[in-house]
Amino acid sequence: MAQPLKVGLAGLGTVGSAVIHLLERGRDKLVARCGRPIEVVAISARSRHKKRDFDAGKFRWVADPSALARDPAIDALVEVIGGAAGPAKLAVETALAAGKAVVTANKALLAAHGQRLAAVAERHGVALNFEASVAGGIPIVKTLREGLNGATFTRIYGILNGTCNYILTRMEQERLSFADCLKEAQRLGYAEADPSFDIEGHDTAQKLAILASLAFGTKIDPRAIYSEGIASIAPADLNAAAELGYRVKLLGVAVKTAEGIEQRVHPTMVPKDSAIAQVMGVTNAVTIDADGIAPITLVGPGAGGEATASAIIADLADIARGVRTPPFGRPAARMTAVRKAPMQHHEGGYYIRLLARDRPGTAATIARRLAQQKISLESIVQRHEAGSRGAAQPGRSEEAVPVILITYATSEDAVHKALAAVRRDRVVYGRPQVIRIERA
Amino acid sequence: MAQPLKVGLAGLGTVGSAVIHLLERGRDKLVARCGRPIEVVAISARSRHKKRDFDAGKFRWVADPSALARDPAIDALVEVIGGAAGPAKLAVETALAAGKAVVTANKALLAAHGQRLAAVAERHGVALNFEASVAGGIPIVKTLREGLNGATFTRIYGILNGTCNYILTRMEQERLSFADCLKEAQRLGYAEADPSFDIEGHDTAQKLAILASLAFGTKIDPRAIYSEGIASIAPADLNAAAELGYRVKLLGVAVKTAEGIEQRVHPTMVPKDSAIAQVMGVTNAVTIDADGIAPITLVGPGAGGEATASAIIADLADIARGVRTPPFGRPAARMTAVRKAPMQHHEGGYYIRLLARDRPGTAATIARRLAQQKISLESIVQRHEAGSRGAAQPGRSEEAVPVILITYATSEDAVHKALAAVRRDRVVYGRPQVIRIERA
Repeated sequence: MAQPLKVGLAGLGTVGSAVIHLLERGRDKLVARCGRPIEVVAISARSRHKKRDFDAGKFRWVADPSALARDPAIDALVEVIGGAAGPAKLAVETALAAGKAVVTANKALLAAHGQRLAAVAERHGVALNFEASVAGGIPIVKTLREGLNGATFTRIYGILNGTCNYILTRMEQERLSFADCLKEAQRLGYAEADPSFDIEGHDTAQKLAILASLAFGTKIDPRAIYSEGIASIAPADLNAAAELGYRVKLLGVAVKTAEGIEQRVHPTMVPKDSAIAQVMGVTNAVTIDADGIAPITLVGPGAGGEATASAIIADLADIARGVRTPPFGRPAARMTAVRKAPMQHHEGGYYIRLLARDRPGTAATIARRLAQQKISLESIVQRHEAGSRGAAQPGRSEEAVPVILITYATSEDAVHKALAAVRRDRVVYGRPQVIRIERA
Repeated sequence: MAQPLKVGLAGLGTVGSAVIHLLERGRDKLVARCGRPIEVVAISARSRHKKRDFDAGKFRWVADPSALARDPAIDALVEVIGGAAGPAKLAVETALAAGKAVVTANKALLAAHGQRLAAVAERHGVALNFEASVAGGIPIVKTLREGLNGATFTRIYGILNGTCNYILTRMEQERLSFADCLKEAQRLGYAEADPSFDIEGHDTAQKLAILASLAFGTKIDPRAIYSEGIASIAPADLNAAAELGYRVKLLGVAVKTAEGIEQRVHPTMVPKDSAIAQVMGVTNAVTIDADGIAPITLVGPGAGGEATASAIIADLADIARGVRTPPFGRPAARMTAVRKAPMQHHEGGYYIRLLARDRPGTAATIARRLAQQKISLESIVQRHEAGSRGAAQPGRSEEAVPVILITYATSEDAVHKALAAVRRDRVVYGRPQVIRIERA
């Protein structure tokens, strides 16, 4: 049998441990598939003597991940330390410079330094694989890099954060508030103690940056991404969505427009019968639109030790087989600068929820402001909430009536201008809720 | 720039023409991605002078596909002639023997001779790629061969025939009969004049044979597949399914059991909220279950010129890049014989629709026969059809009352024995309808 692929594993958290277990369990199958075994020969982690769910004593211990990365005994480094800087970055750079293949699950590192690292990998003729960095167990990186090379992509969008999708699913199904669902997600371990990275859309933005680069051959640029989180979503929005035939999802969307590539992360109304709308709970999904071809959707686990480890092992299997493609599907030097389509030129339908003052002329004022921006309405729902009629509202001289508007395609700019005018006219209370609609 | 990959194209139908168009349209992108152009240099088809939607005069014409296959000017053969024997088989064999890579969309050829052809390709160190042979534009072959190498598959199932899914979708949505929907599908070009290959499940079986081999590393054996078509499905079944929380789909299922690999194609009740149940019309989908990982589902176009051509070009791009894996993910010599799990040992829930004779003792007789086979019932629905009460039925001494039973998990054998006994007892009219339930 050929020489084994010798792996150094840096990081022994949930994913690192699962890599060890899956490699042991799948050993024979991997030999059959790759023609040689894949073996972890050395490990590195922050704490050597922590109790682990495998026998760490079987593996050579290397205290410093960068020392592991240049260890002559290893062919490939698996980096599951995490973080865009510090030991993870140093270990990956060291391994590539030493001519060793790297497999990483580190989306932050790739979003920040992906193109430069890809160039280093190419210069040294080694693989830099990162299937696990986006949508865990869904093979979306390979699909974009190799599986759909015949297609010309026009749009890619997806549910890339399980925490947010879990919260939105619970809010919808159990009519709970955002705050209550977040607490529940934290209790179940689906959300971090500091949830801002997930719920503000930053996690989705990093993953979208990687997908957009793979799909459109552009340089990774997380700063080109417009980002909005889900904290403002209210049960009233989910109810209205359901009534109007939509569901609200936090989507990452990258789309080719006449002006460049629009990259955005925001709560989105998607048609209830679309594939993406069916994706509930912590599940992830990505839809790919290409010229002349019906959409392709991949649905699966976005996180979890075994799903992520499985993606890492698929990347190792490619290395063991000697399969190597440029990390982003084309040479790093051929990745083009992103021409960022400005968000104010975004075009699409909009959902707008206003709290209107119930007095003569309000409807006419709102209608006039929309018309001035050439915004046409597909539907208007105005309804006194049960029991609210006549109830005095503190600090409000008139009753507040919820009004829900669905616009036909218009521009971000027009919507902002119209709503600013409506607020100046003092016919609404507070800040209108605006959710973009994505055709799917 | 490196030398182009020179392609001989055998077959100029819808897919062949789309390959030419997509290669032209995607030329620059493919150069960026593969480091060299992909160029059709010679073509072959049955009729030289047929009018085509591209300028055939630009390409060298080779009358005999096998002569094209061994032409020294080509690096790779694209075979889109079709058929398990004849010129397609000869051309593919000739190309591989001449050390040329082959890309084919020919499921019949692969189902019949896949393992032998893979062995020839491996012996000559060339690629045999067939992404387009299963589920058209969905990159399921690459996903199983490379994308999920870390996973240990336990089950793979899917909607692999757009014609059948279109018919079942129309039947459900418009409450039409099978015969009417088939006629409509034929009118729209979704079904052949002789539809038996599609509607009897043979097309699905060929595709399932390929997927099972990729997933489980077993030799392809279409004869190991149990197959039932959709012609017996009645609107009454679809209505009952909807009421009970299911939808009926023609599935191909390959599943690891204690006895071996069960491979089967049949109309199937799937839970209405499962990913596979959402797939409507001509769309295809495949779900992959693996140890310890949540299911992964791929949804997309199962046919169509551009979708199929896109898959062919992705295969060519791998060849242009020098990427090569064994055609079935492991060396042909390491593919194991299928241990066929016998269908009579299949275990699962069952939907049974009977036409019971409305006379005392019928229910007791049916219940006793099921109990004798240790079959427990999850639900029983018995209903006099509107207006049928008292209506004399020709040749029927008693009224016929539809009874619908949903069983808990039991075996195929038990269901057949129980129903045979019920028929011998003469408490039902005609042949009971039986549809297997698949947990999803």
